[in-house]
Amino acid sequence: MPRRKDPDGPRAAMIRSAISLIRRRGVAAVSFADVLNASGAPRGSVYHHFPGGRAQLITEATQVAGERITGELTRALDTPETAAALRALADALARGLDRGDYAVGCPIAAAALGNEPGAVTAAGVAFDTWRDLVTRKLVQDGATPRRARSVALLVVSALEGALIVARTERNPAALDTVVEELNVLCRSAIDADRTRRPVTAPDVS
Amino acid sequence: MPRRKDPDGPRAAMIRSAISLIRRRGVAAVSFADVLNASGAPRGSVYHHFPGGRAQLITEATQVAGERITGELTRALDTPETAAALRALADALARGLDRGDYAVGCPIAAAALGNEPGAVTAAGVAFDTWRDLVTRKLVQDGATPRRARSVALLVVSALEGALIVARTERNPAALDTVVEELNVLCRSAIDADRTRRPVTAPDVS
Repeated sequence: MPRRKDPDGPRAAMIRSAISLIRRRGVAAVSFADVLNASGAPRGSVYHHFPGGRAQLITEATQVAGERITGELTRALDTPETAAALRALADALARGLDRGDYAVGCPIAAAALGNEPGAVTAAGVAFDTWRDLVTRKLVQDGATPRRARSVALLVVSALEGALIVARTERNPAALDTVVEELNVLCRSAIDADRTRRPVTAPDVS
Repeated sequence: MPRRKDPDGPRAAMIRSAISLIRRRGVAAVSFADVLNASGAPRGSVYHHFPGGRAQLITEATQVAGERITGELTRALDTPETAAALRALADALARGLDRGDYAVGCPIAAAALGNEPGAVTAAGVAFDTWRDLVTRKLVQDGATPRRARSVALLVVSALEGALIVARTERNPAALDTVVEELNVLCRSAIDADRTRRPVTAPDVS
């Protein structure tokens, strides 16, 4: 039985390694043994940390990766304007692509496309959370909740797609172009409501 | 030596099986042996058909899949209006998701995210071709070439992203929502140019 000074040590290392492998290979090409080798975690403690085996490990890795990106998105959206927030987000995504030499994709897209049902569900939760965050930001900026929710889905989808296109080009330009077009649409959603509001609002202030 | 009535028989079967496996598992989880097993192709003829081995097979499978989707896109765009074309395309993609029980993704996205450089390049060629087709359609409808090219990249990226989101939801609604928003943007690109060119008087809608 290995000594466990920090009970979360090998567990966290395995989650970290799983995320890294999923981003590079996709879920179906990541085995429990691969994660053990990459993390250096002691084989004996694996089922202690992940009694649900590979399914649990891949699912938890997706959850952790999703929460991390949710944190980054929350920080990016903490600016006065949606347009500036999306540009900051595109810059962060571009830096990530470059740092990984265009071989490291979005772990949530990889999980969504993978063969582990729990991870597919966790990816869906992450997409939903991001959509909610962008919706809230657009509503704050003045869009109607209904239109904001629709535009927010386009924002999440387009950024995921642009990351894939950028990878084939080994160049982040696709992200910039997509964000500029998203900003045109966000502005139209915000302005459409601004122009509607004085007419429909019962109390004009 | 196996009899070869049709010299393209086992070759085509291997390409078909490779595409199917790539769509379900991602490139990194597809071995030469997997494709042989799935296609029933005789082992002995493999390096006769694919002297470049797995790399050649995966790359050619991506090229064939890309050309097939290019054909579908070309047919979808053969309508008087971009909006109707994108709706038809979303319907076709939704049917594909449903037919594959939401376990079968876009082979080009999978190739782009995979670990086979030739297939990543082939995926990039496919994305470029689709972008060019949508650009041409938007220009036909009245957008400026520059703006059309920018919107077309958003269209390709957003559809790829929406396919991924829809898979996590086991529901094609994301495709419909994204296409409605894309159509708002396409119309703005077309109308913006129409207002700039007083010669083209006739109204759309």
